[in-house]
Amino acid sequence: MPAGEEQGRGGRYSIALPRRSWYPACTTKDLGRRRPLAIELMGAPLVVFRDGHGEPGVLVDRCPHRNAPLSGGRVHQGSLECGYHGWRFDGAGRCVAIPGIDGAVEGRRGVGTHAAVERDGIVWFWSESDEAPTGEPFRLPDLGSGTREVVLRYDIDATMHAAIENTLDVPHTAFLHRGLLRGATPKEIHAVRRPIPGGVEVQYHGEPFGIGFFRPKSDTELVHLDRFVLPCVAQVEYRAGPWLQLVNTVLHLPLSEMRTRTWFVLRANSQRLPSPLVQAVIRLQGPRVAKQDVRVLGSQMANVRRFGGELFSSTEMDLFGSAVWRLLRHAEQGDDPPVIEPRQTTFRA
Amino acid sequence: MPAGEEQGRGGRYSIALPRRSWYPACTTKDLGRRRPLAIELMGAPLVVFRDGHGEPGVLVDRCPHRNAPLSGGRVHQGSLECGYHGWRFDGAGRCVAIPGIDGAVEGRRGVGTHAAVERDGIVWFWSESDEAPTGEPFRLPDLGSGTREVVLRYDIDATMHAAIENTLDVPHTAFLHRGLLRGATPKEIHAVRRPIPGGVEVQYHGEPFGIGFFRPKSDTELVHLDRFVLPCVAQVEYRAGPWLQLVNTVLHLPLSEMRTRTWFVLRANSQRLPSPLVQAVIRLQGPRVAKQDVRVLGSQMANVRRFGGELFSSTEMDLFGSAVWRLLRHAEQGDDPPVIEPRQTTFRA
Amino acid sequence: MPAGEEQGRGGRYSIALPRRSWYPACTTKDLGRRRPLAIELMGAPLVVFRDGHGEPGVLVDRCPHRNAPLSGGRVHQGSLECGYHGWRFDGAGRCVAIPGIDGAVEGRRGVGTHAAVERDGIVWFWSESDEAPTGEPFRLPDLGSGTREVVLRYDIDATMHAAIENTLDVPHTAFLHRGLLRGATPKEIHAVRRPIPGGVEVQYHGEPFGIGFFRPKSDTELVHLDRFVLPCVAQVEYRAGPWLQLVNTVLHLPLSEMRTRTWFVLRANSQRLPSPLVQAVIRLQGPRVAKQDVRVLGSQMANVRRFGGELFSSTEMDLFGSAVWRLLRHAEQGDDPPVIEPRQTTFRA
Repeated sequence: MPAGEEQGRGGRYSIALPRRSWYPACTTKDLGRRRPLAIELMGAPLVVFRDGHGEPGVLVDRCPHRNAPLSGGRVHQGSLECGYHGWRFDGAGRCVAIPGIDGAVEGRRGVGTHAAVERDGIVWFWSESDEAPTGEPFRLPDLGSGTREVVLRYDIDATMHAAIENTLDVPHTAFLHRGLLRGATPKEIHAVRRPIPGGVEVQYHGEPFGIGFFRPKSDTELVHLDRFVLPCVAQVEYRAGPWLQLVNTVLHLPLSEMRTRTWFVLRANSQRLPSPLVQAVIRLQGPRVAKQDVRVLGSQMANVRRFGGELFSSTEMDLFGSAVWRLLRHAEQGDDPPVIEPRQTTFRA
Repeated sequence: MPAGEEQGRGGRYSIALPRRSWYPACTTKDLGRRRPLAIELMGAPLVVFRDGHGEPGVLVDRCPHRNAPLSGGRVHQGSLECGYHGWRFDGAGRCVAIPGIDGAVEGRRGVGTHAAVERDGIVWFWSESDEAPTGEPFRLPDLGSGTREVVLRYDIDATMHAAIENTLDVPHTAFLHRGLLRGATPKEIHAVRRPIPGGVEVQYHGEPFGIGFFRPKSDTELVHLDRFVLPCVAQVEYRAGPWLQLVNTVLHLPLSEMRTRTWFVLRANSQRLPSPLVQAVIRLQGPRVAKQDVRVLGSQMANVRRFGGELFSSTEMDLFGSAVWRLLRHAEQGDDPPVIEPRQTTFRA
Repeated sequence: MPAGEEQGRGGRYSIALPRRSWYPACTTKDLGRRRPLAIELMGAPLVVFRDGHGEPGVLVDRCPHRNAPLSGGRVHQGSLECGYHGWRFDGAGRCVAIPGIDGAVEGRRGVGTHAAVERDGIVWFWSESDEAPTGEPFRLPDLGSGTREVVLRYDIDATMHAAIENTLDVPHTAFLHRGLLRGATPKEIHAVRRPIPGGVEVQYHGEPFGIGFFRPKSDTELVHLDRFVLPCVAQVEYRAGPWLQLVNTVLHLPLSEMRTRTWFVLRANSQRLPSPLVQAVIRLQGPRVAKQDVRVLGSQMANVRRFGGELFSSTEMDLFGSAVWRLLRHAEQGDDPPVIEPRQTTFRA
């Protein structure tokens, strides 16, 4: 639970952004061979491009000559070319050409570079420039052959913490997304929270199964697990026997303290239902749910700003907020993960 | 007369906003049964809605749970429902429902509430939250049966002081509204200023009678009185024997220090002219005059900002500016009203 | 060379704006008889109008009464009339009329005024108000009878220094304006820098001659001189024997520290080519080149702001940047012009 009188904390905004971590830069699909992409990490401008070997490069988005943004240029002969005077840089940030004095690039100032790796359709990068990364980026789930994927991207006016809590917040789905994600008649749900490596997980028991009008009448038990994994992954997992396996992995890139880019990587599979149908349902419902969340998070952030800070209070249903906050906060300060104590609760949704 | 070298005051902007006072929130007409209204008082976000008894409620516009604006929600079963998780509040700011744990609302944090009263077609509220009001809101004038009313609303980029001075400023009407409010040929006018309870009044003698093309040729004497009453009412009163009784009561809500919402409540009656004609003339001329004022006040405010503050000078025609300023300033500081000395002057308008 | 680690300077933005100087206010063509023009000099709002004698007047853009912008008014009977209460001012800033008390303007506060002079189609004004100017404004070049002129105006998000360097920067033209200003095949160019009174000049030898598709095949030697003259003039001069005399005089008005108004006064003449053709080519190419520069300068400025300041590095091709910076900086501080040491270099463009 972030800032607020009931938590006795002094902080006014739920801003905690771990460094020395892997963050998502863009999807494989978004990164072409010609156009560089401009992104930001915690307010620092970066440019992403594909170098001469087809590998992603992530550089500080500033030409060392006259400081024009390299993202305003283009990829030329496998290097990134500034749009002002045509200086070119490779994926390691080294200056490789200056028009007019092409040969004389030795010893020229280069640009800072971030380690990058591309896997599971995502370009990941290390948050520190000119530093060797540790560990691996988060792996996306493999749901087996026949899996369908839909990726949605949104830029949200929200702290990363607020965006993560929103994704993992079951009570709001029963209200805000009524009729989209859940049925009209709430049922009693039993929730069990437990720690996982580098994160926290909640399992929900007794939940009705359905996504919009897609509600097979059967006695299939629904397995529903939500989890957060440091520093930026929220995951919602549904398993309904042979009917559906659905995992929504939400990746967060903190563009700045109060603006967050999110990718919803929705993967689904079914042994009973035809793949095109599964994909069609996700494609239909996903954006509706996401747009409601983007809107409400933006109005929450705007209101918190109007009041000059947060003053939150919580109930026993808010199982993720405080746990995610403590995990982010410890990671930001470079501490070991805190102990997330197990907890159980029952509510209607 | 506010900030400026000729006044020897140190203040740079004419900002003086009395607290512990009644201010207008909205009109009866604007407040429906379903949609709450968002307003601001001196930068503080408030929400206005109609509760289960049809009474107006004015609450602090922040849900105590995750701080979403309550004005983004709706009125449901007579209480105000947040659009994020569906928490509900009554007109006294008490939490009356939380979806998922409906019964368990005892002791939950509520929201601040402002005393409110609805009369004369206006919803008034007390400027302090959770405080018992003193005194009564300003009463609108009763011009007898057959009275027609037109209400116009404008949000102006102006301090409340500048907006009030503009409404009560006769010299600018002769210039800015030439041909709308006044004839092409100026006449000599004698003005007498005197104090009234909680305010100041000026009576004008010798003025030509007419509103646009509505200028009955007669020897009817025109009685013209302008007045300011603390904290937020400017009133312009014309009485031309049996031809016309016209009172323009301008109510001000200081949204912030430099943005002011105004309602022009124009009421008119006539024993000679048909009511529909009177109303048509007001409806035609009112918005034209008001739009010119909104525009000029906005450009005045923008220019004062460009220069980083005010540097005003005045003439003997400026009878209201300094009197209104002193009244506002004393009221803001909780002092007794200052003595507004009587004054007379003559000019052409 | 302005701010940046390689220059060892502490300043973060290349902002140096000489005072006690002549700056361009507007063109003769832009200043009509009725409508005043609003401009800014280093953030100070000014109004330009034509007085009763047809002479340009440059006043502080604030009515002394209620601080409305005089530029929002009109020119009436040869004086500048405020749009709020109709106060009027002459070209010397004296109050000459107040509606209502027309006769009583003696001793009223006037407005600050700047010395102004109109010549070569430009209205120039002195940067200090209420001060006698010294020296003369810059004279535009006379290219003899048959000269054609095109004037382009742009407001650029750039420091004046960055705008001037851009105009005088040959390397970027070979890259950014490829195909517009220069041929596809770069040639070796020898550049010689030398000081001139109140400025600096570079002569380029060995340059190919051509403007877009206008490239006469001949062995005509191209004389190309670029120069900067304090405080605000950048000039590009091409002389190609009887084929072309082209001088682009770029006048800069620093609206604020990071926003600069520029006029490209393009004058051209030819003994061989028909005047309409010369003018058509300028009219066609000029805006294309200028728009590319406006865009890249804006993105440079935005990026420098994103990074909170400049971090430039230079090559031996950057002959103007540091010289212009030192000239501006000394002039800003009221010092004598610095010694600009001669320098030579060779590059391909």
